[in-house]
Amino acid sequence: MNDTQSLGIVSRLCALFPGISTLIAKGVYDAAFPLHDVSVLHEEWARYSAFYKYQPIDLIRKYFGEKIGLYFAWLGVYTQLLVLASIVGIIVFGYGVATMETNIPSLEMCDQHLNFTMCPLCDGACDYWHLSTACGTAKASHLFDNPATVFFAIFMSLWAVLFLEQWKRRQISLSFSWDLTGIEEDEVNPPTDKLTWKDRLPGYFINVSAILFMFGLTFSAVFGVIIYRITVSALMAMSPDPEIKANVRVTVTATAVIINLVVILILDEIYGTVALWLTELEIPKTETNFEERLILKAFLLKFMNAYAPIFYVAFFKGRFAGHPGSYVYVFNHYRMEECAPGGCLIELCIQLSIIMLGKQLIQNNIFEIGIPKLKKLVRTLKDKESAPKEREEEKPHQWNLDYALAPFEGLTPEYMEMIIQFGFVSLFVASFPLAPLFALLNNIIEIRLDAKKFVTELRRPVAARAKDIGIWYNILSGMGKFSVIINAFVISFTSDFIPRLVYQYMYSQTGTMHGFIDHTLSYFNVSDFKPGTAPQNSAHENITYCRFKDYREPPWSPDAYHFSKQYWCVLAARLTFVILFQNLVMFLSLVVAWVIPDVPKTIVEQLKREKKLLVDVFLQEEKEKFQLIQSLSRQVLLPKAIQADSHSYTVAFSLQYMFNFCIFLLL
Amino acid sequence: MNDTQSLGIVSRLCALFPGISTLIAKGVYDAAFPLHDVSVLHEEWARYSAFYKYQPIDLIRKYFGEKIGLYFAWLGVYTQLLVLASIVGIIVFGYGVATMETNIPSLEMCDQHLNFTMCPLCDGACDYWHLSTACGTAKASHLFDNPATVFFAIFMSLWAVLFLEQWKRRQISLSFSWDLTGIEEDEVNPPTDKLTWKDRLPGYFINVSAILFMFGLTFSAVFGVIIYRITVSALMAMSPDPEIKANVRVTVTATAVIINLVVILILDEIYGTVALWLTELEIPKTETNFEERLILKAFLLKFMNAYAPIFYVAFFKGRFAGHPGSYVYVFNHYRMEECAPGGCLIELCIQLSIIMLGKQLIQNNIFEIGIPKLKKLVRTLKDKESAPKEREEEKPHQWNLDYALAPFEGLTPEYMEMIIQFGFVSLFVASFPLAPLFALLNNIIEIRLDAKKFVTELRRPVAARAKDIGIWYNILSGMGKFSVIINAFVISFTSDFIPRLVYQYMYSQTGTMHGFIDHTLSYFNVSDFKPGTAPQNSAHENITYCRFKDYREPPWSPDAYHFSKQYWCVLAARLTFVILFQNLVMFLSLVVAWVIPDVPKTIVEQLKREKKLLVDVFLQEEKEKFQLIQSLSRQVLLPKAIQADSHSYTVAFSLQYMFNFCIFLLL
Repeated sequence: MNDTQSLGIVSRLCALFPGISTLIAKGVYDAAFPLHDVSVLHEEWARYSAFYKYQPIDLIRKYFGEKIGLYFAWLGVYTQLLVLASIVGIIVFGYGVATMETNIPSLEMCDQHLNFTMCPLCDGACDYWHLSTACGTAKASHLFDNPATVFFAIFMSLWAVLFLEQWKRRQISLSFSWDLTGIEEDEVNPPTDKLTWKDRLPGYFINVSAILFMFGLTFSAVFGVIIYRITVSALMAMSPDPEIKANVRVTVTATAVIINLVVILILDEIYGTVALWLTELEIPKTETNFEERLILKAFLLKFMNAYAPIFYVAFFKGRFAGHPGSYVYVFNHYRMEECAPGGCLIELCIQLSIIMLGKQLIQNNIFEIGIPKLKKLVRTLKDKESAPKEREEEKPHQWNLDYALAPFEGLTPEYMEMIIQFGFVSLFVASFPLAPLFALLNNIIEIRLDAKKFVTELRRPVAARAKDIGIWYNILSGMGKFSVIINAFVISFTSDFIPRLVYQYMYSQTGTMHGFIDHTLSYFNVSDFKPGTAPQNSAHENITYCRFKDYREPPWSPDAYHFSKQYWCVLAARLTFVILFQNLVMFLSLVVAWVIPDVPKTIVEQLKREKKLLVDVFLQEEKEKFQLIQSLSRQVLLPKAIQADSHSYTVAFSLQYMFNFCIFLLL
Repeated sequence: MNDTQSLGIVSRLCALFPGISTLIAKGVYDAAFPLHDVSVLHEEWARYSAFYKYQPIDLIRKYFGEKIGLYFAWLGVYTQLLVLASIVGIIVFGYGVATMETNIPSLEMCDQHLNFTMCPLCDGACDYWHLSTACGTAKASHLFDNPATVFFAIFMSLWAVLFLEQWKRRQISLSFSWDLTGIEEDEVNPPTDKLTWKDRLPGYFINVSAILFMFGLTFSAVFGVIIYRITVSALMAMSPDPEIKANVRVTVTATAVIINLVVILILDEIYGTVALWLTELEIPKTETNFEERLILKAFLLKFMNAYAPIFYVAFFKGRFAGHPGSYVYVFNHYRMEECAPGGCLIELCIQLSIIMLGKQLIQNNIFEIGIPKLKKLVRTLKDKESAPKEREEEKPHQWNLDYALAPFEGLTPEYMEMIIQFGFVSLFVASFPLAPLFALLNNIIEIRLDAKKFVTELRRPVAARAKDIGIWYNILSGMGKFSVIINAFVISFTSDFIPRLVYQYMYSQTGTMHGFIDHTLSYFNVSDFKPGTAPQNSAHENITYCRFKDYREPPWSPDAYHFSKQYWCVLAARLTFVILFQNLVMFLSLVVAWVIPDVPKTIVEQLKREKKLLVDVFLQEEKEKFQLIQSLSRQVLLPKAIQADSHSYTVAFSLQYMFNFCIFLLL
């Protein structure tokens, strides 16, 4: 059979009659799959050189079925909207670059005349240091920590709403042109229907405890990396070699992030398997139900896994480090880590970009290209060994070619990858305005990569219908909502935006940012160092006070080293910003969702036209019926006519019945 | 015609053929209305003694049409759920009563030994006073300002979600049993369709400016009452009569609230008319569109009107009063008003209860009973004058009786009253846990009052279909969302809940509330009074410091009278609470909405059954058709049979056509 259309029908019939899967399970057959026939798709779609083209969605749907069609349509809408986000992101980044040299706080940090002597970064081995040595990170920090970022965070929250609305419209268009309205999936697995909650309880129990255990695992991994960072930097700082000392931060940060990345990639694979196993334990009632539960679990685990280290850097790192004279220690003698002098935002940005890019590159190259290729190779080698070497010259049959391919295993990994990416684009976008650009570049490749994979690397999947993208929409919408509060916290707590505003409008004498750096640094009397924690061999002499970044009372105040009034004032301002930001964005999101109609105008009009046509047809029928009855009643005495009459009454009657019935369905 | 059912059909036909309204408009007829026939409804529904019964919704729908049926169904669901809210409200209030005598802050306020000398409440004429004289309000304050209120606010936010979900379910049940699915209202008023945006611009412009003007009017009214309060209390305080002086606060508060109430009631009527006029200016395209715009405008205006004074007391009163030595003055010599010593919450509670109860009582008695009765009286008198006095002994015709009734003018006022009440129940519920109880009592009467009005005071309305309560649902849902943030602010900023928590966990030496009152009072050095503002004839001697309620630095501090560290600390805690409360409640609301399925289980099952039935019917038809064709093909050579055959083919063909068509509709 070469006709794509009829193949689609056949495959649907296969899905309807599950006898074949029983036969495969019993080992009678080895595999059953529709055959590939891909020349058009290959030409129009599954090539990198077609990256600038719209996807031939209708063709994809005809070839792979609605479910896969919807995935690629969704990916298309997402990628298209990423273009907008990328452009705005680049402009925002450009603003940061353009204002970097005129930004007063970073100029002040770089100014060697101001000469802030900072407290040592580790006990004993580290010396005092000058703030101006951190000039580089201060400047880099400004790239991402400027007023344009606030605008960008608001913009991206609205962008997320826009994306969801746009997808809703596209979905309605597609379900209209693909005739998907009214599909319901409720194939009940009969034997499980009789399970009571008592039968299900152990399954749920194992589920909850396993998920909690996995969360624990993720957190321990994050914590392990923190411990690694703390101990290694302490050990390196104690080393006598000055070269090692100089590179502490770079070495430790780089290795730690790479460890994080590797842990994430490994746990990701484990969690996928665990989620599947857990969902099978639950014995869900329907296929849809199974899929939803699996997705939800896998999402929860993978989300935690991908974002735990980022959450740590954004909201916790450096907040529990204590202050000079009363540092917080882990394992009795390792000081809790602090953020780089430029602020935590730059570290967040590094963490984000490495994890995002690394995950994309490695997942694309190894998991999506490398491993399938490897599997194919192994399979072909095996086949060659086992199969007799006859008829080698003949052109091989399509079913033999396709048999060598890997079986299709569902869309969940594809969606999951994109949803986790959507998180990078929406959740922490305030700290990394280039995220949409990287996502866009990835997706342009991803579409063609997935296309190639579906067309050449995998057996042709059995076409499946679906009326929407299911639970993924809810997950997307949930992430969109969550991103509002996360971005509010990133701007107000991780970045220095609010302290700068507070300084400018409440403390600055001149109304400018001059003196901001001085204002953010507290004093520490070096005589208050605990024994053994002061620098052992200091190059600096005659130091009485060193400075540290925090809002605390100076040593000469009655409650020295307690939080100062500024601290509470800045905290109140930060919290106010969170409330304002969250409520403003939520309000604007409602407005955006309200302004964009769910059903595109063209569809509304088409529906109206169809309805009118329908009414016309029925009116016509009624009219004809009436005429028929009239003309017959005139010939009422002829016996043949009577017979015809009785028949046409039957016709009329059934028409009437059907008419009423259709009206009933309509209303 | 006496049959209710057929009357309903007639009235629907009247609505379909608008000729009669043209004739009425031209003065050919005086009025056109369906006739009343109410014995059953009267017995079962429109009596106060039936207050404990469920409403006979199906009967109401049959008699008045779906639109009014839905209103009463909605009112029923709302009232039913108010029972739950009332019970919890009473328990919360009971907790306040029970703990009043053991509450440390109010005990401390009443303790005469503590002897806090407070700064005078007005310039010159007022003397210093002892805090223990405010013991009464402090105790009353505790009734509404206790930890149970926080719980109640969370509960009521979830209650609002529960109510909306419950209504959604009820609506789906009703639209299923009343066959309302698929109704669409799109009667376009043809002549307006050709208006371009240029034609509409002036209308919109007038709209926006008129609404802004009305907002201005409302705010000026509120501001006027504030001025009234400030000036009258200043004048009364200056009066030499000690009796007048003693009653200043009670007199001023009482009169001011009554003025507020009267202004609200008057403006309410005006705003209704203005909204109608403004909507007519817009020339909306469809009837539904017209109604929606009218409702939205009327709601905005009336909401502002009803809540502006309450918002003022909750969030603004006393916050711009300044502090001793630097008060804020209006008109140069009137001090801005402060809240009562017990806190603003008790004033908010008084304001709320008086406006809520006054509005309900007055609107019910005067606008819903009094005025219609009066109108009816006038109408009957007029009729008696004009009509000849013949046939007086005869039983009058139903149409004459009904002609004497007032015409039905839409459901908007009924809904509006309930929605504004819903605002009292949800928006400020943290300050007045008895609001649901009062609403419940009102609604039990309201249902029967409305019923009586519809049955005996108004002409029977032309039955109208509607598939839901329309924009009211959106308004309700919007208010539910808005109430979360309002309640968060009431608890954290209007009540003393957060300052108490902060004191207990951050400042208290003993970990108890002892010393809280002292902690909330700042010191003022009486030598810092501006000339002429110190008390002229003080009964107190040797006063150096007086106290006032605020967190400010003491006079002996370097920055005297600036906000103290405590101020910022408490502010940060308040804001934190707002964020936590809002996000917790939003999350819980999502969970509640997710847990309650939109479509009741019985309906889902019924739908499934019907679908199965449908498939069975079609299968049966197909089978019969097949048998018919088979049996006919055996007799194919008889000419009569051929004819029958051709006919039954027609039948079969049309059946087939209809079948396909129905399937198309289903999918």
